Amino acid sequence: MTESNKPSLEVCLSPALLHLFDVKNSIVVIIDVLRATSTICTALYNGAAKVIPVATVEECVNIGRAIDGITAGERDGKVAEGLVHGNSPFEYPREFIENKTLVLTTTNGTKLLHMAKDAIQIITGSFPNISAVCDYLIAQNQNVILGCAAWKDRVNMEDTLFAGAVVNRIREHFDVNCDSAIAAETLYESAKTDIHQFMKQASHYKRLAKYGLEKDITYCLTPDGANILPIFKDGALVGV
Amino acid sequence: MTESNKPSLEVCLSPALLHLFDVKNSIVVIIDVLRATSTICTALYNGAAKVIPVATVEECVNIGRAIDGITAGERDGKVAEGLVHGNSPFEYPREFIENKTLVLTTTNGTKLLHMAKDAIQIITGSFPNISAVCDYLIAQNQNVILGCAAWKDRVNMEDTLFAGAVVNRIREHFDVNCDSAIAAETLYESAKTDIHQFMKQASHYKRLAKYGLEKDITYCLTPDGANILPIFKDGALVGV
Repeated sequence: MTESNKPSLEVCLSPALLHLFDVKNSIVVIIDVLRATSTICTALYNGAAKVIPVATVEECVNIGRAIDGITAGERDGKVAEGLVHGNSPFEYPREFIENKTLVLTTTNGTKLLHMAKDAIQIITGSFPNISAVCDYLIAQNQNVILGCAAWKDRVNMEDTLFAGAVVNRIREHFDVNCDSAIAAETLYESAKTDIHQFMKQASHYKRLAKYGLEKDITYCLTPDGANILPIFKDGALVGV
Repeated sequence: MTESNKPSLEVCLSPALLHLFDVKNSIVVIIDVLRATSTICTALYNGAAKVIPVATVEECVNIGRAIDGITAGERDGKVAEGLVHGNSPFEYPREFIENKTLVLTTTNGTKLLHMAKDAIQIITGSFPNISAVCDYLIAQNQNVILGCAAWKDRVNMEDTLFAGAVVNRIREHFDVNCDSAIAAETLYESAKTDIHQFMKQASHYKRLAKYGLEKDITYCLTPDGANILPIFKDGALVGV
């Protein structure tokens, strides 16, 4: 708690900066907008029993086999060899994913999640579940770190924008004494009237658009399409 | 060089991210707006022979004694024990600093400078010498990394704003495929109509204002008050 008697709200723009934050005494929100944390909330919203995030394709294959789960993950825009599904949220409608366990390999998001393991609580956020994330954070009255998964540790636009959108919504409940949080919020304020257009400058947009994934991008940037709260418990994300 | 045949322009928001950039093939601009790189250009503009940046107070004392230099540096807003002058640009008018060597200890800026030692060239930038920096970068036609010194590795507002201001001025001459650069420029665009007011939210502003240094802050955020180019050569910054 800070002098204001409100908990702190901070933004960590890259996993390579997480050591600068007091993870142990905070709730950490893992943010990987394109597309891991968008797909995670979508699968859970559509009734998945849980989502197990893993770092490598090998781990994904092994765990998927052991628990009869749906293995998913991409490398260079294609389903990774040995896995069955991709990273798109559209691959996980209710009729497919309900009551199943998704074993998802993502590099950036999973790495950050494991780095944050000592947090009070880990949740995941993206635009499709922004309201669930904000409502939860306000209700907890704990310090919060919005952790951007970034791209190979490089700060990225979409995760920063989502962090800024959350700051914008919940700041009155927190003490915001973090330049990254103020910068992210200002960026979001500049972008919000046409966030899709704004994102066209971003490196990840260019990467995904090359694979024909504009529809994914639009979904991942749109609020509340899958408004559920994924909480990390016993190695898996479950919907609350 | 990139596909566009223009050199790249990137922004590194913290020394803790510098390893992600191709320092060896770039000009690196060290940015420590409050106040190291503002004071450096001011001293050189006012005729200092050179500025030797050092990491510790001890080193500052020893080098100062060896070369009969002006030793300067602060800890917690006061001149550090054993040194003679502080970090304020106003301590270095022409009648005092002309033809002398300033030995300056700063933690964040010096650290980054040493980390960037393999760069094609190292220069320093802040608002007081923004035009000299931009003119130089355009003329070189080399890849550029705008390196923010930050605050103990945490991203800060003032260095990010300066990086954004440079991107805003020179981007047409470069290939800007870096989300940090686009974010910094957008932030600068939001702040530029009243950058002093905008900075009042920043953590460093609050720290310095506590010490009564608003006048320093205003100077450090104002363009072209000391429009000279500090270039790092043989362990010292000299004015060009």
